[in-house]
Amino acid sequence: MCHFGMAKSILITGGARSGKSLFAERSIAKMGGAPTYIATARPQDDEMDVRIAAHKARRGAEWGLVEEPLDLIGALRASDTGPRLVDCLTLWLTNLMLAEADWRAAVDEVAGVLPTLDHPVVFVTNEVGLGIVPANALARRFRDAAGTVNQTIADAADEVFLVVAGQPLKVKPGAA
Amino acid sequence: MCHFGMAKSILITGGARSGKSLFAERSIAKMGGAPTYIATARPQDDEMDVRIAAHKARRGAEWGLVEEPLDLIGALRASDTGPRLVDCLTLWLTNLMLAEADWRAAVDEVAGVLPTLDHPVVFVTNEVGLGIVPANALARRFRDAAGTVNQTIADAADEVFLVVAGQPLKVKPGAA
Amino acid sequence: MCHFGMAKSILITGGARSGKSLFAERSIAKMGGAPTYIATARPQDDEMDVRIAAHKARRGAEWGLVEEPLDLIGALRASDTGPRLVDCLTLWLTNLMLAEADWRAAVDEVAGVLPTLDHPVVFVTNEVGLGIVPANALARRFRDAAGTVNQTIADAADEVFLVVAGQPLKVKPGAA
Repeated sequence: MCHFGMAKSILITGGARSGKSLFAERSIAKMGGAPTYIATARPQDDEMDVRIAAHKARRGAEWGLVEEPLDLIGALRASDTGPRLVDCLTLWLTNLMLAEADWRAAVDEVAGVLPTLDHPVVFVTNEVGLGIVPANALARRFRDAAGTVNQTIADAADEVFLVVAGQPLKVKPGAA
Repeated sequence: MCHFGMAKSILITGGARSGKSLFAERSIAKMGGAPTYIATARPQDDEMDVRIAAHKARRGAEWGLVEEPLDLIGALRASDTGPRLVDCLTLWLTNLMLAEADWRAAVDEVAGVLPTLDHPVVFVTNEVGLGIVPANALARRFRDAAGTVNQTIADAADEVFLVVAGQPLKVKPGAA
Repeated sequence: MCHFGMAKSILITGGARSGKSLFAERSIAKMGGAPTYIATARPQDDEMDVRIAAHKARRGAEWGLVEEPLDLIGALRASDTGPRLVDCLTLWLTNLMLAEADWRAAVDEVAGVLPTLDHPVVFVTNEVGLGIVPANALARRFRDAAGTVNQTIADAADEVFLVVAGQPLKVKPGAA
């Protein structure tokens, strides 16, 4: 089944442990079709490994898995056989920044490709800009970049949700 | 007057100085009955003392006071004679973690008891997960735990509000 | 055209790089009249200079500019010839605290003057209280003060918006 540019794109944002991934998985489950999990994480430490294993156990066996820390466009195209869950944009941004890649160009490219996809995609991202201004210049650059990434994808997406304490709040389209 | 499991439970979350406590006190006032303030704070420093004194002065004389840093279930049962305001879950979590208690079991127990209470309860908590990932591992553990506590109580509560600049935004039940 | 106390006041809050300023500029553009940008920033470093230049280029030539780091009341009166955009309250608070001025009195005065203004005003501010409690006492004082400033202006304003990933969410007046 092909929609040629009519597949829905959703951005899900929120704080750490706010229930974003679970809400994303439930949104994908409602869409039907064989889902693919596009993991942008680069397992580097034990904390991350534990979290990734917990997510994997929760999703279940029907999910395909693509691990892609940098080439999100390639991953979106390669897995174009059902709804995709990209988890998450902030780790992808971290990877791009560490690789000294042009993250602005990369996020613009992802935003540009959204209307052309044949299958729905759900992006998970993080809000990192609602605390005190970080003392560290790199942290300030990262939070500015993350805000720009979130705005860019939100602008291109059909729906945007803020998840608070596990409760999804639709912010796009907004209330009339 | 006893409702036997029909008493309303509300979770109020938000950032520091966002007006959570004032909104919680007003919500309690609308419920009628002799209210009890369940303080989970352990006065440890001057900053906290000043804040507690300001809250106390604002509430007024009709409020009962229970100070309970750890045994929240016990405090909820002991004060079961009118609406209760628990302020706040994040300090309770801090106390449990410092005491090396099983905070997951404790929060599951509180969530489980909500549908059985005879009188309404309003929980105040904090959003702590919307800033940059803390450099400190203990801070990361705490913010993950706080997110889990908030999700667990929000899931069990009848209503959830996010307070922003003093303005309550209902996130559960959500808009249709 | 004078409204004598009927001019609308709006508070726009959100995280870093959430799209607050752009939404504020668009809100002003809808109001008509010659707009004035009241900049509270004190250009101190290169990061800030770059950001201010980008905002200026985006706004366009029809905007007047008032740079006023401390006397916001004076700036609001002096520029009373069209809609005003105050960007932002948190930098103004920073300046007041650095000058050891009475910021509580100053924000109460601004809140008090809102109903008397002849032309609309849009305030941009920042949410800084949704991360982990800062280790630094000055940062804690600042985030408490910022929360108080936001509550005070939100209480006096006609409308309050939280901007998330570029999407405005109306929090005042709230949903019925």
